[in-house]
Amino acid sequence: MNYQPILDRIHAAIKPVLGEGKVASYIPELANVRADQFGMAVVDFAGNTYVAGDAQTRFSIQSISKLFALTLAFQREGDSLWSRVGREPSGNPFNSLVQLEREHGIPRNPFINAGALVITDMLASRFVNAENALVDFMRKLSAVNDIGYNRKVAASERSTSSRNAAMAHFMKSFGNMNNKVGDVLDAYCRHCAIEMNCVELAKSACFLANGGVNPWSGETVIDASSAKRLSALMLTCGTYDAAGDFAFRVGLPAKSGVGGGIVAILPGECGICVWSPALEPSGNSHAGSLALEMFTSITGRSIF
Amino acid sequence: MNYQPILDRIHAAIKPVLGEGKVASYIPELANVRADQFGMAVVDFAGNTYVAGDAQTRFSIQSISKLFALTLAFQREGDSLWSRVGREPSGNPFNSLVQLEREHGIPRNPFINAGALVITDMLASRFVNAENALVDFMRKLSAVNDIGYNRKVAASERSTSSRNAAMAHFMKSFGNMNNKVGDVLDAYCRHCAIEMNCVELAKSACFLANGGVNPWSGETVIDASSAKRLSALMLTCGTYDAAGDFAFRVGLPAKSGVGGGIVAILPGECGICVWSPALEPSGNSHAGSLALEMFTSITGRSIF
Amino acid sequence: MNYQPILDRIHAAIKPVLGEGKVASYIPELANVRADQFGMAVVDFAGNTYVAGDAQTRFSIQSISKLFALTLAFQREGDSLWSRVGREPSGNPFNSLVQLEREHGIPRNPFINAGALVITDMLASRFVNAENALVDFMRKLSAVNDIGYNRKVAASERSTSSRNAAMAHFMKSFGNMNNKVGDVLDAYCRHCAIEMNCVELAKSACFLANGGVNPWSGETVIDASSAKRLSALMLTCGTYDAAGDFAFRVGLPAKSGVGGGIVAILPGECGICVWSPALEPSGNSHAGSLALEMFTSITGRSIF
Amino acid sequence: MNYQPILDRIHAAIKPVLGEGKVASYIPELANVRADQFGMAVVDFAGNTYVAGDAQTRFSIQSISKLFALTLAFQREGDSLWSRVGREPSGNPFNSLVQLEREHGIPRNPFINAGALVITDMLASRFVNAENALVDFMRKLSAVNDIGYNRKVAASERSTSSRNAAMAHFMKSFGNMNNKVGDVLDAYCRHCAIEMNCVELAKSACFLANGGVNPWSGETVIDASSAKRLSALMLTCGTYDAAGDFAFRVGLPAKSGVGGGIVAILPGECGICVWSPALEPSGNSHAGSLALEMFTSITGRSIF
Repeated sequence: MNYQPILDRIHAAIKPVLGEGKVASYIPELANVRADQFGMAVVDFAGNTYVAGDAQTRFSIQSISKLFALTLAFQREGDSLWSRVGREPSGNPFNSLVQLEREHGIPRNPFINAGALVITDMLASRFVNAENALVDFMRKLSAVNDIGYNRKVAASERSTSSRNAAMAHFMKSFGNMNNKVGDVLDAYCRHCAIEMNCVELAKSACFLANGGVNPWSGETVIDASSAKRLSALMLTCGTYDAAGDFAFRVGLPAKSGVGGGIVAILPGECGICVWSPALEPSGNSHAGSLALEMFTSITGRSIF
Repeated sequence: MNYQPILDRIHAAIKPVLGEGKVASYIPELANVRADQFGMAVVDFAGNTYVAGDAQTRFSIQSISKLFALTLAFQREGDSLWSRVGREPSGNPFNSLVQLEREHGIPRNPFINAGALVITDMLASRFVNAENALVDFMRKLSAVNDIGYNRKVAASERSTSSRNAAMAHFMKSFGNMNNKVGDVLDAYCRHCAIEMNCVELAKSACFLANGGVNPWSGETVIDASSAKRLSALMLTCGTYDAAGDFAFRVGLPAKSGVGGGIVAILPGECGICVWSPALEPSGNSHAGSLALEMFTSITGRSIF
Repeated sequence: MNYQPILDRIHAAIKPVLGEGKVASYIPELANVRADQFGMAVVDFAGNTYVAGDAQTRFSIQSISKLFALTLAFQREGDSLWSRVGREPSGNPFNSLVQLEREHGIPRNPFINAGALVITDMLASRFVNAENALVDFMRKLSAVNDIGYNRKVAASERSTSSRNAAMAHFMKSFGNMNNKVGDVLDAYCRHCAIEMNCVELAKSACFLANGGVNPWSGETVIDASSAKRLSALMLTCGTYDAAGDFAFRVGLPAKSGVGGGIVAILPGECGICVWSPALEPSGNSHAGSLALEMFTSITGRSIF
Repeated sequence: MNYQPILDRIHAAIKPVLGEGKVASYIPELANVRADQFGMAVVDFAGNTYVAGDAQTRFSIQSISKLFALTLAFQREGDSLWSRVGREPSGNPFNSLVQLEREHGIPRNPFINAGALVITDMLASRFVNAENALVDFMRKLSAVNDIGYNRKVAASERSTSSRNAAMAHFMKSFGNMNNKVGDVLDAYCRHCAIEMNCVELAKSACFLANGGVNPWSGETVIDASSAKRLSALMLTCGTYDAAGDFAFRVGLPAKSGVGGGIVAILPGECGICVWSPALEPSGNSHAGSLALEMFTSITGRSIF
């Protein structure tokens, strides 16, 4: 299918709302990004690539890294992973400690910060260097070799990570953190600081829409059933505390980040990525959410 | 597609686990149901009906009524409905008051008790008799004319509804309950006490899988986009506090009840209903969940 | 001791702050009270009465009734009372449902609304008419025969009691409410609507400071040890969520009401009552708290 | 007053319950203490010392250190201290993070762990070495020169301090922790590991009962009004989540520790300390609480 006219239409329609919302401001590197940028890319399994706007501009993937860190950990740990992290929506702002206390140090899902810290702890146990492992993984998934993380962003995040440190120590008190908290936080912040553009991210997500197979290498990343299951998790938990609303409006499995990116998939068809830095109060890109909503409205294609 | 061999296979495979779990026991009428019963029905839009086990045995639909009450209210209220009830998973046991307090009397979604009480309040404002309105609606959706509610079950539920009364009064204190609490509880308990069988429920759910159109009458129940949206809500919120896990394992929009029934849809294809009274701790039918998991595994068909 | 010069000094010093704060506004009868009124009374066991300002003006005693309802119930139930209500500060705003849920329907103490509803339920089981029982009790404790409750205030409170209804039904769901919720709420609202003045309330509190003996009749209300224990409860729980701060600043056992009254005792010496309708955010009288703080500062007398 | 006969009577009466309850077990050094030990000491301002049982055996003072750390910080900070820590009972188990989240990093009071960490942070800003500062302070208050902390206990506590680390990082995320978390935890754990006996602790508490004046040196530790205020705080917050019950039963300002010690004061008269390692579920010494309850029953002396 030729998605270009649809992307052009979305791009034109989205312009009036660009910049509405708030750019993440807890570190200077994110606060300084121009709010009204917008990019979108759709990539099918044959490699046909459709783009709009700033689709080639790299941005900080932030929590989108949680999707790929989970995949990498799941490759290694299999279903035993679920003894340390749940699969339920959090029903609370994404960094809340309350639920963690009630549920004895088991985070609700791998897409909230606490859950991603547990996943990072798993990677830290499996790899000599957890951040390099994820960067390598992203390079393979996107078939792009110069992907890396921004050291300044990583350092900045690390210096403001008291809340994540609190959660990590808290989970350690429940026996759900095996490595040194400082090491896990280092890796976690570097994962968040990985920089990619819309095309690269849309390509990286294709394996999930393609039965677990990386279309660029032909390699099986995870089996088809697991690919469906991770997609289900994206739908129920991928967009912070607005997952229900997002499923209602958009109807696609997706993972968002406070850098303004949202990765989504249309199972059996394509990987999608939108980016626009200004955020809704939920932490999801405002223009990005609207663009995806238009995409499913215009195409009449969602998973429902 | 001929689903009969699949249903037979599921029926055979499910037998060893029948009766595992706990039958709902808060009212005698539910506690006395035999735990090891099992029924399953799949109905496509041409009316082809595939059944297994006790698919013709009526049971108490309980919270499955919430799906149809929502549809009926949504027909009348449209999107203004969402000002009084949210669309997010609850992240808490289904009858918790905590979240209601934190969110100023707006229940998280229409499928938790608090949310269904608000929906019932809307129906009580729109119809002379809210329970008859829903019974009529179920008769039309299923094309079966003798559906009704069990008065003994309704009375029994009403006499043990202190917690729902608490929630209704609490929402009234926030201005989110317009009718008399006693009247709303009467109607709510009668909705829960409606009795239907698997075939009837599978038929009743078809409109959601069929772009909002009732296949038996040709009438548009809700528009196609709304049908997709309600399906999304089923996926994220339809199975109590286990919605994430259910989406992960089964991958179909579904609504369950503590009577042991689960209604699900395969968009574009069919309505499905399973029933088996013994429940998982989450309140969903144990054998029913497994049967649906098998269904998507065997057919390779889920929404993901 | 002659408290008159002290009361005069307090009265003079308090004038500039009269009216600061907010008069309770959830019912018209309270909202219409003039904010800048102030009364204070100290009564010793010989009946010496020292007054300042509007000490003879009756006001709605509101939650001060909880102290006397507790005493009356304690006379009847003895220590078995504590199986249905706790003795710990609530650590939460006074009408919160959260803690009630966590602690299975047992309110934290008899001075929060939930606890007072349980106490009222006990009185409703013991007396033909729970509200008359408390009115009679207040007449005896104060040696004043024309004390009664304001029917208009009671009716107004009853019509806005959804939140209390929610709590009562919620406790009923845990088995901690024996009478009909409506009856208990009727009595509870009438207790709150009792009207007394500072002198009458100061006299009524004397038995707590006097080893449990009513100085006006010589009758033992409760034994000396129980009087001390109820005084301890006043100190830790008597002033809503500000009990710690109140103990810190004032250092006297006290019970406040949103009508602006605060009853306090100086063990072995006297009963005290202040009244000024404008409230602090905690629900305690602003000028009243300051007056009591001055009282302990000037006299150098507190329990510490 | 000669307290010796009273202490002898308590000692005899308490023997049957010694060892009932559970010795704190989160570190080996506490778990290995013999459960059935019991000591008690009363010291008046003339230095008259009355003892029973193991009153000369040193034990780990644990959270009793919070009382003296607060006093030391209050000497330096004055009332500005209360901008960083509250004065209300916690209404939650003593190490809960929930309330800390709801109240933006301000702990409810200085006697819960979170509050004591803030106090320790203040000491770490004021003194080159916060642990030596507190040890020196204890030596002066008790007039005993060889008081110190147990390095093994401190190290053991430090190695199991994940939950306290979580709280400290969490407060840092709210801007309520100025020093390095690791340094604050080091000092905090050493404070808890200070070892003293009943006589030494009873002597150390005398200044609070004596208008803020250290009877052994004549020095004013804090002014009389502040001494009363800290005593009020002990009453409302000094015995974990059982402060209401403790005030009800005992009626004396007190501070307990999981080492089994409880320090109390009778204002104007004496300092008191009991010690017995087996704890109630609330974390307070079982035999110690009973001994103090007997003390106030027999003497008829409490603050009420």
